[in-house]
Amino acid sequence: MTITRHWSENAEGSVLVEFGKTRVLCTASLTEGVPRWKKGSGEGWVTAEYAMLPRATNERSPRESVKGKIGGRTHEISRLIGRALRAVVDVTALGENTVVLDCDVLQADGGTRTAAITGAYVALADAVAWGERHGAIKGGKQVLTDSVAAISVGIIDGTPMLDLPYVEDVRAETDMNVVTTGGGQFVEVQGTAEGVPFRRDELDALLDLAVVGTTELTAIQRAALAEEA
Amino acid sequence: MTITRHWSENAEGSVLVEFGKTRVLCTASLTEGVPRWKKGSGEGWVTAEYAMLPRATNERSPRESVKGKIGGRTHEISRLIGRALRAVVDVTALGENTVVLDCDVLQADGGTRTAAITGAYVALADAVAWGERHGAIKGGKQVLTDSVAAISVGIIDGTPMLDLPYVEDVRAETDMNVVTTGGGQFVEVQGTAEGVPFRRDELDALLDLAVVGTTELTAIQRAALAEEA
Amino acid sequence: MTITRHWSENAEGSVLVEFGKTRVLCTASLTEGVPRWKKGSGEGWVTAEYAMLPRATNERSPRESVKGKIGGRTHEISRLIGRALRAVVDVTALGENTVVLDCDVLQADGGTRTAAITGAYVALADAVAWGERHGAIKGGKQVLTDSVAAISVGIIDGTPMLDLPYVEDVRAETDMNVVTTGGGQFVEVQGTAEGVPFRRDELDALLDLAVVGTTELTAIQRAALAEEA
Amino acid sequence: MTITRHWSENAEGSVLVEFGKTRVLCTASLTEGVPRWKKGSGEGWVTAEYAMLPRATNERSPRESVKGKIGGRTHEISRLIGRALRAVVDVTALGENTVVLDCDVLQADGGTRTAAITGAYVALADAVAWGERHGAIKGGKQVLTDSVAAISVGIIDGTPMLDLPYVEDVRAETDMNVVTTGGGQFVEVQGTAEGVPFRRDELDALLDLAVVGTTELTAIQRAALAEEA
Amino acid sequence: MTITRHWSENAEGSVLVEFGKTRVLCTASLTEGVPRWKKGSGEGWVTAEYAMLPRATNERSPRESVKGKIGGRTHEISRLIGRALRAVVDVTALGENTVVLDCDVLQADGGTRTAAITGAYVALADAVAWGERHGAIKGGKQVLTDSVAAISVGIIDGTPMLDLPYVEDVRAETDMNVVTTGGGQFVEVQGTAEGVPFRRDELDALLDLAVVGTTELTAIQRAALAEEA
Amino acid sequence: MTITRHWSENAEGSVLVEFGKTRVLCTASLTEGVPRWKKGSGEGWVTAEYAMLPRATNERSPRESVKGKIGGRTHEISRLIGRALRAVVDVTALGENTVVLDCDVLQADGGTRTAAITGAYVALADAVAWGERHGAIKGGKQVLTDSVAAISVGIIDGTPMLDLPYVEDVRAETDMNVVTTGGGQFVEVQGTAEGVPFRRDELDALLDLAVVGTTELTAIQRAALAEEA
Repeated sequence: MTITRHWSENAEGSVLVEFGKTRVLCTASLTEGVPRWKKGSGEGWVTAEYAMLPRATNERSPRESVKGKIGGRTHEISRLIGRALRAVVDVTALGENTVVLDCDVLQADGGTRTAAITGAYVALADAVAWGERHGAIKGGKQVLTDSVAAISVGIIDGTPMLDLPYVEDVRAETDMNVVTTGGGQFVEVQGTAEGVPFRRDELDALLDLAVVGTTELTAIQRAALAEEA
Repeated sequence: MTITRHWSENAEGSVLVEFGKTRVLCTASLTEGVPRWKKGSGEGWVTAEYAMLPRATNERSPRESVKGKIGGRTHEISRLIGRALRAVVDVTALGENTVVLDCDVLQADGGTRTAAITGAYVALADAVAWGERHGAIKGGKQVLTDSVAAISVGIIDGTPMLDLPYVEDVRAETDMNVVTTGGGQFVEVQGTAEGVPFRRDELDALLDLAVVGTTELTAIQRAALAEEA
Repeated sequence: MTITRHWSENAEGSVLVEFGKTRVLCTASLTEGVPRWKKGSGEGWVTAEYAMLPRATNERSPRESVKGKIGGRTHEISRLIGRALRAVVDVTALGENTVVLDCDVLQADGGTRTAAITGAYVALADAVAWGERHGAIKGGKQVLTDSVAAISVGIIDGTPMLDLPYVEDVRAETDMNVVTTGGGQFVEVQGTAEGVPFRRDELDALLDLAVVGTTELTAIQRAALAEEA
Repeated sequence: MTITRHWSENAEGSVLVEFGKTRVLCTASLTEGVPRWKKGSGEGWVTAEYAMLPRATNERSPRESVKGKIGGRTHEISRLIGRALRAVVDVTALGENTVVLDCDVLQADGGTRTAAITGAYVALADAVAWGERHGAIKGGKQVLTDSVAAISVGIIDGTPMLDLPYVEDVRAETDMNVVTTGGGQFVEVQGTAEGVPFRRDELDALLDLAVVGTTELTAIQRAALAEEA
Repeated sequence: MTITRHWSENAEGSVLVEFGKTRVLCTASLTEGVPRWKKGSGEGWVTAEYAMLPRATNERSPRESVKGKIGGRTHEISRLIGRALRAVVDVTALGENTVVLDCDVLQADGGTRTAAITGAYVALADAVAWGERHGAIKGGKQVLTDSVAAISVGIIDGTPMLDLPYVEDVRAETDMNVVTTGGGQFVEVQGTAEGVPFRRDELDALLDLAVVGTTELTAIQRAALAEEA
Repeated sequence: MTITRHWSENAEGSVLVEFGKTRVLCTASLTEGVPRWKKGSGEGWVTAEYAMLPRATNERSPRESVKGKIGGRTHEISRLIGRALRAVVDVTALGENTVVLDCDVLQADGGTRTAAITGAYVALADAVAWGERHGAIKGGKQVLTDSVAAISVGIIDGTPMLDLPYVEDVRAETDMNVVTTGGGQFVEVQGTAEGVPFRRDELDALLDLAVVGTTELTAIQRAALAEEA
């Protein structure tokens, strides 16, 4: 996985994540104010929107803007990314600010949702740092309580394997997305049987493997953030 | 959990599930033919749509039909129910028929998605039996390879607990939905940290507890289906 | 016709109406405040939304939320129910409160719109009583000036007949929906020729018959409301 | 009421109806073929769409195309016009052809829906004649079994009155739209209490008056159609 | 080109433009207040909406309100009309008022967008005069800095020609819409090659011809506005 | 301007255009078959869709997919790109194939529509070459009759200037987009007065300057296409 920070100049945080042939542009937009239902709460809000360019995949899919509605898969992944990042945000420390994380898949080859989470964390960290430098985030409390990284694991021909490219993904008997904190605890675990149900020991093996993967991703995130802004 | 079969007379399968104050009407509609992208495949199709009546909850929510779009939560749950039931359907045995599972929440008090899956299985079994009796499903192969049941578990004040009513659900530190087959294997595992991330041993305890719950639900499903149609 | 009050626990008024095989769940939600265009008027607002579950009918119809728009029939019936109930509400006595009447057809066998009006009145009465008990409706003036009930009548093979089940409804030469107050006056009369136009004497006979029907329904409403809440 | 035939040159039938300050452009488009659900039935299809220009009324209303959805009132009136005209069409004689009646209100001053029906009938008659002349409608059977005309009547200060301009319409205690055939029989009767419910004798007086009005409109339609095309 | 002012009675400005068989109703609605993003700026806002009746053209096109979305062509022309008129409005002199220009094509035979601009200017002038007479526009500064008129020109068989009817329009090799002020300067120039690209000398010839056309239209506008209101 | 071909691996043509800080990803998808209204014509179809990522600009704009509709600006630019490219395509030589050009703005700093056209041509050329290599485009006739390039020019403080970055763009008194073929002829000319109308001599100067610009862009396109695929 390669993480390129400051990929675009306009956003408070902008990260291009590359993972195999998968490329996701994760952009964090920090703005003052919160949605109406949070006004006056003293708390901030973090949300995410995931989307794919029409030809990110092997066959072109119609634009959701042209169809006039968002599909279930897009909704589901956007919600997953939002939940994952909110898990490490102290909304009181953020104050009444909103961060929107846009994760746009430029090229897809499996693992786009987990790449998006991993990259969005870095974009979020940059946006929070920007907010602190520019006085948008006040009070000096730590906004991010930990980091998050995500990986997908699957069982191929009976063997648990780390983050699969698309062609293997469709062969996988079980597909699991795991989000952990930098501290190694679980934020989200989503395992789905494709074809045959899975046993508890298989689930355990997948979880073990996933933690190995997210630990490595956490290291890559730290290295990226250690570089000069 | 109470399961009332044949709640409405029109559908091939119609089940009212009651679980605490939660009431979900699960209806299975069997029709000949499949969506265009499956035509000629010899395989059937099973899909699900979940919805809530506006005042199923404590405060009225606007109708999605009036808003003109389906929310992310609705999409996410509909997809979960569909995946869960497809896991036990042999689409070749079903032949080119479609079953739509409509899960409409009449009253909500936590656990609606897991109640919906558990009830939808019974409605599906009734619809498949109807199809076999009426010659819509031919060939004599077993359509349903197993049963599915689902439960939600959570950690309240550090203690893992089975299917929570709404007021406890919002207090839960971790919320997990588990779908298993009647044979005790996993179809879907979705655990989400609300507030603090969870440890592996907590995850293990939740999975153990969930299997106890779905085993019990499986027994209730069997008893319901054993009754005269 | 059977009227079951307090069918669900969440709403201020909740009535299940059963009429032959037709079952409609009528829910009244009372909330403080009125739409923007009525703010400061001192008057309340009563509105209705009618919908059918996808498989309430013999063949499944697509969900309007999935289609992204509301059909003409749904719009028409929702407006009819709202008008019918507003006819017996003193909006000044209601004060700046809103009552939304959700009429969801769980099973349909003809006469759903008239069953919805008849049931919605009882739900409305319960919601108004709740509002008076809980201090939401102040001033002590009578909010409901009368009751309303509705019935459909039709001409079958030349004979005017009361509320028809679906199979006879489609055979009817003329279909008429009549809404009257408990006092026996007309709130709404909608007669439509299906096939051949109708004569004035047929119209007169239908109106006579309809009033017999709504008088009976008024008695059933009163009996239901006379029971302990 | 003034009826101008052939107002526009493109359509098979095109009628401008003027009634007081109300102006409705009624256009009939005849095309070969029917909607999918009528294919092979040998029967034709007649449908209507009603709309208002944004500034037909005293205050500008937002375009429904811009809002992205059609309002309930528009739906309701479109359906009424369609039903009214289908009542005098022999769909077998029409053959597998479709007539769409577009009724666009250019200026509104009360009675737009009844003016639309009255004008749409003349446009329909022109389109049917066009179809017969050009061989689109074959078989020589009479397509139109009668004519239809519509009027609105209301009670103002206790007195039943014929077709009211908008300012009096809003004062009306009861508003009734009546559609009759040229033969004087009823196709549709829609009476609504605005404010106070109405008595049977008031209903009778309104019906009597309405028939006087539609008889006169029928004569105007006949005179218009008697002119050279 | 014929310009009929005060075509409808409700609007502040209402102009029917006829140009060959093309007929466009241009309506100007003046209201107090501006969109939220201009509030407090002291400036007014002018915007336009263009639409076609379904059967304005030779074949009926589906209503955009029924389709639930506005097409690209409609959007493009609405924006063009708005830009053209804003070019001659001093928004400070207009004050915080909004003028919406509705241009509805009743019959189409080529050149609808340029006819719409030319007519909309007259409707705008009437609305501004109305606003000054009724005190809605205060301060006595001149709101309209000039007039605007628009024409389409094209190359047919190598010859530049003025405003083409539809049948010639589709044959044109190049189609150009030109908007000029009454003072003869350019507000908008849009030239499009249909089929073969055009040379600079052709472009020059088209521009020369267009200015001849708009000069004539300016005279017609002045004559129309010189008449008694 | 920098042109990077084969930016993504999935599409038949994929070009990243960079122009100052503006970055547009132009993707050409070639598929067999044409829209229904072109079936059996023997001709192909070329169309374009333009979009911006939410944070391509300095302030985040809401996603059009989330809003459920496409804005007028997006529609207008998509249509412009499609027209520009169709001007150099021989649809008969293309055969019944469709090319969709997706132009997604990753970072915006003025001139996105002209950069999109210039890049889309290169993507189209690559897709056509791919189609010829893979036998999708048969017959050996030349599909592309010429190249197209586009530039924007404007008047700043009275001086005509080539392709302006965003900050100068908003200051421009006149903004003109010019599309020319490689042969130096005009495909599209769109000039708009922002603020004050422009004179003919200014228009002429802008056209002269634009041709200088597109000639240079044509050279860059040729150089890019001359490289090994």
